[in-house]
Amino acid sequence: MNIESADLRTANRIVLRWNRDGEKEEFSDCLVREFPATVYLNDQELVTLLCTPEFLEDLAAGFLVSEGMLRSKEELESIVADYEQGQVWVKSSASHFIAEKTFMKRYLTTGCGKGTSFYSLNDVQSCNPIITELMVTPEQIRSRMKDLQNRSELFQTTGGVHSASLASVEEVILYREDIGRHNAVDKILGYCFRQGLALGEMMMFTSGRLSSEMLLKVAKVGIPILVSRSAPTSLAVELAEQLGVTLVGFARGPRFNVYCHPERII
Amino acid sequence: MNIESADLRTANRIVLRWNRDGEKEEFSDCLVREFPATVYLNDQELVTLLCTPEFLEDLAAGFLVSEGMLRSKEELESIVADYEQGQVWVKSSASHFIAEKTFMKRYLTTGCGKGTSFYSLNDVQSCNPIITELMVTPEQIRSRMKDLQNRSELFQTTGGVHSASLASVEEVILYREDIGRHNAVDKILGYCFRQGLALGEMMMFTSGRLSSEMLLKVAKVGIPILVSRSAPTSLAVELAEQLGVTLVGFARGPRFNVYCHPERII
Repeated sequence: MNIESADLRTANRIVLRWNRDGEKEEFSDCLVREFPATVYLNDQELVTLLCTPEFLEDLAAGFLVSEGMLRSKEELESIVADYEQGQVWVKSSASHFIAEKTFMKRYLTTGCGKGTSFYSLNDVQSCNPIITELMVTPEQIRSRMKDLQNRSELFQTTGGVHSASLASVEEVILYREDIGRHNAVDKILGYCFRQGLALGEMMMFTSGRLSSEMLLKVAKVGIPILVSRSAPTSLAVELAEQLGVTLVGFARGPRFNVYCHPERII
Repeated sequence: MNIESADLRTANRIVLRWNRDGEKEEFSDCLVREFPATVYLNDQELVTLLCTPEFLEDLAAGFLVSEGMLRSKEELESIVADYEQGQVWVKSSASHFIAEKTFMKRYLTTGCGKGTSFYSLNDVQSCNPIITELMVTPEQIRSRMKDLQNRSELFQTTGGVHSASLASVEEVILYREDIGRHNAVDKILGYCFRQGLALGEMMMFTSGRLSSEMLLKVAKVGIPILVSRSAPTSLAVELAEQLGVTLVGFARGPRFNVYCHPERII
């Protein structure tokens, strides 16, 4: 069950606002809810994610995919979320699933090791450079980015969330919001993993900055184009170059910057 | 040694920009560097932080303080950073320092457990509600926030960093930038910890959103006022209420919202 009620995503609170003229006034503000959801893998507590409480099943699946702990749909036996308790129970048949020590090591290092070289040795080596026939026009990038911004109702209400969308050249396929930019993307990746959707002809759009972790998430599942309204880091660009991801930043209005692999934009 | 050279914080790259008129042009863009820095505690690898490579000693100290692994200046024997290799070596005399298992558990749960109640049981219980005589005027909040924005040169160059500052009512004491909003705050907390600065009369300003983790960082070291230009989450407000932190959000120009403990603003 996914909860789409706005009530579970937000909370109202009486707030004092100081104004330009030095006056203060009370008003009722709408806050985005931050909610701890603990993921259990084969009955073992694995991680607690601070998130916006909807699509918890997808969030858990996407997180495990991003961490390399879920590799094929067949491995996934079940996912059950308890939205009251903030718990997601995942059952998997894969033995590497129970490799808690490996995971903890990985997680502690937030996806990298003792230096940039670790990327090429582990995460980057486990990624195949992306090969796709996908070609897009500048207008398609602009339109899908505009779609992302138009849909961000929770941001418009609370100012406190990031948004992400998966889009084909024609339309937005899936849209998600979360207090965490990684969570919003994981909710999309988890949905696609559970549905078995192919991602080789898709684009990912995000409101958040493009760090190395964001780039690796997208590259791991073979999405060839990543677009953000914000800035990329140097490491995200290096990895995108290596892994064959077209990296687009500062997509605002008619303008956007392409940091690598511009050959897919015609 | 701290590195302040702009060269180490940024990297230039030739980028393609698509313009309004559909034309594209090449230009040299300045990217913020993302750099993995691994923290070793008593010769044991603990965590790798993805960060902007400056003030790594402070970053490591601030991270350990935030995680509850460094409690007093006396425990800290030495911190040595290798900016080439991205390594920070911390020596501590405290036995809880080596409690890697506890840390890993904590880290995995990103500061919370199986539900909101965990906060009150652990992190929140280890925090004493803040008692201070500090009173500020609305104008002081506005001026210090303006100082933060004026100082953000790296953001102005790259668009890719968060900034944080520690301020008294009169002036900015310390200013830091990082690709991660938590890192920018940890760099400040680490500096103060190493210098033995008292924080009970200080305010923390941040460009980033106010999540529960940010609130706990500030509350743990006894800073009574936390101000952001962005939105708070519901959980951050709940914790601030409990822990006696004056939480100010959406501080933009002359306006700001006070989410709890407005009694310190006169």
